[in-house]
Amino acid sequence: MNKKSILDLAIFGGSPLFLSPVHANRPNVGDVDHFFTSATSIFKNRILTNNGPLARELEEKLCRYLRVRNCILTANGTSGLSMLIKALDLKGEVIIPSFTFISTAHALMWSGIRPVFCDVDPVTWSLDAGASISLISEHTTAIIGTHIWGRACDVARLENLCAERGIHLLFDAAHAFGCTYRGEPIGRFGTAEVFSFHATKVFHTFEGGAVTTDDDALAERLRKLRNFGFGDYDRVDMLGTNAKMSEIHAAMGLANLASIETTIDRCRSVWEEYRTALNGVRGLTVYARSDSEKSNYHYVVAEISQAEFGLSRDQLVDVLHSENIYARRYFYPGCHRAEPYRSLFPGAEAGLPQTREIGERVIVFPGGASMEAYDAAQICALIRFVADKAEEVASSLAVKDGHG
Amino acid sequence: MNKKSILDLAIFGGSPLFLSPVHANRPNVGDVDHFFTSATSIFKNRILTNNGPLARELEEKLCRYLRVRNCILTANGTSGLSMLIKALDLKGEVIIPSFTFISTAHALMWSGIRPVFCDVDPVTWSLDAGASISLISEHTTAIIGTHIWGRACDVARLENLCAERGIHLLFDAAHAFGCTYRGEPIGRFGTAEVFSFHATKVFHTFEGGAVTTDDDALAERLRKLRNFGFGDYDRVDMLGTNAKMSEIHAAMGLANLASIETTIDRCRSVWEEYRTALNGVRGLTVYARSDSEKSNYHYVVAEISQAEFGLSRDQLVDVLHSENIYARRYFYPGCHRAEPYRSLFPGAEAGLPQTREIGERVIVFPGGASMEAYDAAQICALIRFVADKAEEVASSLAVKDGHG
Repeated sequence: MNKKSILDLAIFGGSPLFLSPVHANRPNVGDVDHFFTSATSIFKNRILTNNGPLARELEEKLCRYLRVRNCILTANGTSGLSMLIKALDLKGEVIIPSFTFISTAHALMWSGIRPVFCDVDPVTWSLDAGASISLISEHTTAIIGTHIWGRACDVARLENLCAERGIHLLFDAAHAFGCTYRGEPIGRFGTAEVFSFHATKVFHTFEGGAVTTDDDALAERLRKLRNFGFGDYDRVDMLGTNAKMSEIHAAMGLANLASIETTIDRCRSVWEEYRTALNGVRGLTVYARSDSEKSNYHYVVAEISQAEFGLSRDQLVDVLHSENIYARRYFYPGCHRAEPYRSLFPGAEAGLPQTREIGERVIVFPGGASMEAYDAAQICALIRFVADKAEEVASSLAVKDGHG
Repeated sequence: MNKKSILDLAIFGGSPLFLSPVHANRPNVGDVDHFFTSATSIFKNRILTNNGPLARELEEKLCRYLRVRNCILTANGTSGLSMLIKALDLKGEVIIPSFTFISTAHALMWSGIRPVFCDVDPVTWSLDAGASISLISEHTTAIIGTHIWGRACDVARLENLCAERGIHLLFDAAHAFGCTYRGEPIGRFGTAEVFSFHATKVFHTFEGGAVTTDDDALAERLRKLRNFGFGDYDRVDMLGTNAKMSEIHAAMGLANLASIETTIDRCRSVWEEYRTALNGVRGLTVYARSDSEKSNYHYVVAEISQAEFGLSRDQLVDVLHSENIYARRYFYPGCHRAEPYRSLFPGAEAGLPQTREIGERVIVFPGGASMEAYDAAQICALIRFVADKAEEVASSLAVKDGHG
């Protein structure tokens, strides 16, 4: 990092720190040779999809890894959640955090269910169990929590709450592969959990996902649902869809699962680099990991306090983008402010002060197993440089934007 | 084919004609080296999905091949149809043939739309345009025709009918890749057409599909819908889903498209083998291909008339299965007799005499580019043998089943 003055910053005309874009979630790829060996076997067998041998092997291995009785692989995380909604015959209203990926709200709306947006806990940024109580109505059929950044929701409290009210508890575990709650792998809590295995996740299958559950009868329904409701060769028993995972996607999963511990170790090294190198930067707090739980360290998340840092989160994002560092806002501006929810439920905003607050402060830096530690160090040095010159940068940005 | 007496048939204890199963739709695979070269480039670029360069290349090439303005690749055919239903805001009732794959009915039901089952034309086995008129109600928002076995629906008549009534006309083109209607490639008719690129289709992407349309505004909506409704980096404009095709699936598509004419030529050779070798077998009619249109010859379809053949279609299927020949019934017993439609709409049966009739007679033999002509010849010789001994076989089956 050889920038000496703020004029060396790319946003003010300097050369970008990186020649090509460094993305926030560049895909991790495990053992590529393992993948190509499996791919060759697929063409030899000519079994290309429809719950083939590789998909079955991956399901078995994931059950062992997650210590759960059933793993139903799906075409993607959204199709997994959509199937789960049908399998449980959810209706009416379902409570979800607004600070989460939009697909949860969409999957509900697609099935005619109203998503009721709940605020998040200011420490964990996951669904606030306390706040959810007042949102439960006679129409509520489930609560869906998201284990944000791989840190578990308050599972015990939500389990009690949902058991008392006789409603389902589901979890979006898209961030939480390889993470634990009370020492047990996330994936076996609530009625069921849904994973995304999208390319940007710590463990992926190009596109894909899974529903995991200890409920065997539910698993059976999900398996049928995934394949058009077929109960037999040409007997359709129920409304279903196509949510099958292809063999080539399963092959990627097997290759990535074989090296998952190495991947998580690499993610941790990158995360440690950021945490150490950014330690003490005023107004920038790296999101904490629990010491007592396992994390996948996949997301390098921080909060920017504008008053202390001297620049807003959005200003920092702009500065970094100019340097070809694709740090990004996350879950901004919250599901409730995205369409069609903004228009349908304009009143939702009032109950979501933490969501608003956090949504303005979060920044996700390029992380994960594909990062070089050297690049992470360069990024941190740049951030530290910007923090040191924050006042000067802010003034120049104001001039640049015509507000000076 | 060395069977001399009916006791040599596997169903009566003889050795099966084939040691391992010969399936009705063993996947065609084009140029595998082409696929592996693309796959290597994916890992080099680290762009694994999200409308990557291979998906965009495949969309462009398919637009040229199908002579249509827009091709929107999807995770599978069902997700393509589901998106199309949302993009057009279909509601109320939609008319579809009962003699088609179940996914059409399911995609409608999933969106709260009632599928109204229409009978099929006794010659083409596609949606009977005449019969559909009496099914149109004030709630009807669309008709979906299926180009069964790649032979086009009565497109002109349906287009007139739908234009008059102000309702959408859609086509399920899952069977019709590479086929024409009045000399033009199927894929550009009606408001939009939906393809399945499932592994068992003449052209495939492991799992996948596409919506094709000349309507640019509709295409734009579909592209957003496919990626959660994102209009920009973190701006969601509308209800969407995940229906993206991964790069590795697109790589399979590019490899298969590069050799599609060879694939279709091979399909035609196999189909010709059956047609020639089965010519003159009483009570067995190979489904006709139009001389004036291009066909992909992917499905080797026949009708069995029990009265003339001497065995029912189901008896012939049982005999063939014992020989490891996985000939199969198709669209049996019709969507209206599958759940949940059978229970929801018990009255549908009355209006579907042709569907019932055809459903009892159709048999699909192993075909496609993966078949060896020698194997097809063996299968035909066996069928001819069974046809010659049909009376004896029928008696022995009756004894075997305890009805003799």
